[in-house]
Amino acid sequence: MKNLLRRQFLQQVGLGIGAMALPALPTLAGLPPSRKLNVALCGLGRYAGYLAEGLAVSQYCRLAGVVSGTPAKLADWQKRYNIPPQNCYNYQNFDEIVANKAIDLVYVVLPNALHKEFTIRAAKAGKHVIVEKPMATTAADCRAMIAACKAAGVQLAVGYRLHYEPHHQELMRLGQQKIFGPVRHIDVSLGYRLDGADPNDWHFKKALSGGGPLMNLGVYCVQSCRYVLGAEPVAVTAQFGPVQHKDLYTEVEEAITWQLYFPGGVFCTSTSANNFGIDRFFASTDNGFFELSPAVSYGPFRGRTSQGELKFPDINQQAAQLDGIGRVLLAGEKLPDHIAGIEGLKDLMVLEAIYKAAETGRRVSINS
Amino acid sequence: MKNLLRRQFLQQVGLGIGAMALPALPTLAGLPPSRKLNVALCGLGRYAGYLAEGLAVSQYCRLAGVVSGTPAKLADWQKRYNIPPQNCYNYQNFDEIVANKAIDLVYVVLPNALHKEFTIRAAKAGKHVIVEKPMATTAADCRAMIAACKAAGVQLAVGYRLHYEPHHQELMRLGQQKIFGPVRHIDVSLGYRLDGADPNDWHFKKALSGGGPLMNLGVYCVQSCRYVLGAEPVAVTAQFGPVQHKDLYTEVEEAITWQLYFPGGVFCTSTSANNFGIDRFFASTDNGFFELSPAVSYGPFRGRTSQGELKFPDINQQAAQLDGIGRVLLAGEKLPDHIAGIEGLKDLMVLEAIYKAAETGRRVSINS
Repeated sequence: MKNLLRRQFLQQVGLGIGAMALPALPTLAGLPPSRKLNVALCGLGRYAGYLAEGLAVSQYCRLAGVVSGTPAKLADWQKRYNIPPQNCYNYQNFDEIVANKAIDLVYVVLPNALHKEFTIRAAKAGKHVIVEKPMATTAADCRAMIAACKAAGVQLAVGYRLHYEPHHQELMRLGQQKIFGPVRHIDVSLGYRLDGADPNDWHFKKALSGGGPLMNLGVYCVQSCRYVLGAEPVAVTAQFGPVQHKDLYTEVEEAITWQLYFPGGVFCTSTSANNFGIDRFFASTDNGFFELSPAVSYGPFRGRTSQGELKFPDINQQAAQLDGIGRVLLAGEKLPDHIAGIEGLKDLMVLEAIYKAAETGRRVSINS
Repeated sequence: MKNLLRRQFLQQVGLGIGAMALPALPTLAGLPPSRKLNVALCGLGRYAGYLAEGLAVSQYCRLAGVVSGTPAKLADWQKRYNIPPQNCYNYQNFDEIVANKAIDLVYVVLPNALHKEFTIRAAKAGKHVIVEKPMATTAADCRAMIAACKAAGVQLAVGYRLHYEPHHQELMRLGQQKIFGPVRHIDVSLGYRLDGADPNDWHFKKALSGGGPLMNLGVYCVQSCRYVLGAEPVAVTAQFGPVQHKDLYTEVEEAITWQLYFPGGVFCTSTSANNFGIDRFFASTDNGFFELSPAVSYGPFRGRTSQGELKFPDINQQAAQLDGIGRVLLAGEKLPDHIAGIEGLKDLMVLEAIYKAAETGRRVSINS
């Protein structure tokens, strides 16, 4: 991720100017200026509900279809959101979506380990894809997903909602443009309590989640370090936290801490945990600081800098993300790298290095 | 440090009630009720200036003497604070203080590695001692200092000013009394930039400092974890940060991160650094959080809890500490453990374990 390039892309997406037109993209046939991108949600868990709320107010996307393994959920969503029966799929007949002109994009909101399969199946059906983060459970899977979308001539986005969120866009600006001088250190942590959760929840099953809080929460911390610094980490050290709920955490970590080393001696510290709440971002710069807390949740955010309050409107983050991606796809343009599969791959390379560092107790290099 | 005992002591010191009278303490002869404790500052660096300001407004202590290796400093202080010439000492004739009835206590504010020698010399001269933190550069030195003071029948305090500071007393109360439920995690970091400092400053010389920011700043982080949890850590992992200013940091670390593990799966994360500023305390509890930022400097502090603002008067911290210690000594009572040498020893045991963990890359047990 080159600084200049990233900034240009952010400006393009943020301001909607000058995005590069691509010749070989699949056309969204018969596109009137006011047409919305027709989105099918694949996976109808909790977060799909948030996305449905975002789709309801999106200017560029609309909820057009659903995919689920649970017939009752399909029936419920079909009724609640007035979705035509022919736009509802289960996991068996999902590939038939290839023939459905009323679906432009599949938004994969399944457990992490299923992202790869359904992204590739959607791509093969000729649909653009947004896949929730983490993009997959391994960097190798990310590469396969990128390759499949490229081969199918569809675009692949990762659900990085905070790239479209004003507070975080300001963090990017403050960091990348060195508004308070160069950033010397970032401390960013995210934790949500899961200790009262159903033991059968997929988050506790490594085959479905790929890991514990690092995969689902730590990815935000890694992201924010990367996009605030506008740089890629070169190495990491990491430590698994103690397991407090031994009944729940037999397969994945309950808590993890790590230190991410960037070029020039800058380093970042993070904790992700499922046994306590934490939601904080802090950057120390040569001439001050900037921080958010809450920082990563759906808002309202609260922030300050060494010069005063850091406050922007609290928005519908899901709608903003869908609008940002939808606008680019509707215009037949190429998604910027910071929201595309390459960004998810870079995160996964870091997450894999963090696990390796925690498992071995050694400093692990990251070759981006 | 037992919970109940600590809390009782805090209440005693905080409220000035019911401290235990000891039979065998040295009497401060001819003590009228309104007499102040006569303090000699040993070491006239920057922090001695803060202490002089505190002494000027202390109700229980007064600046009565000075000790310095620099004749010009002695002359300056003598004049500025109207100190009788017979209460001024250099490092050579310091032991003659034994005959000086006008000095009750020596406050050792020298570079860390000199704490041991001057504490023991002061004790042998029959003077009570306050020694700045870190108490010494090794746990073994702390033990020798405690033994010397015990043998001489004088009391030994460590300069833990935050034990007398209202925001931190509130952190102790919130943590130890589990006001928002048990504390599950603490993140506390302290960093001050020294990168523009004189390369000959003692902080960069291991023989004088005993180490880098861990010794001088990290000790606050370790302290706050211990006194908020009211518990002792059982193990630690740690990592040296990258060295950015290779000219300055040839002997001591420039930055360090560590993870402190307490009983019951609670863990704390910290960073101390001399190449960027950071000054934050955050505790996550079962039912909320409490935090301070700035947290450890001389104020004004700024804090909040999950229920609102955390705000107390910003006080002269040095005066409050001197009053807290002076009141106990003037009453001929025993200093509570939380301010005595045993507390400094416990911190040094943790600091030594942190260095060992950073040097070896291994998890190191702490046997308190």
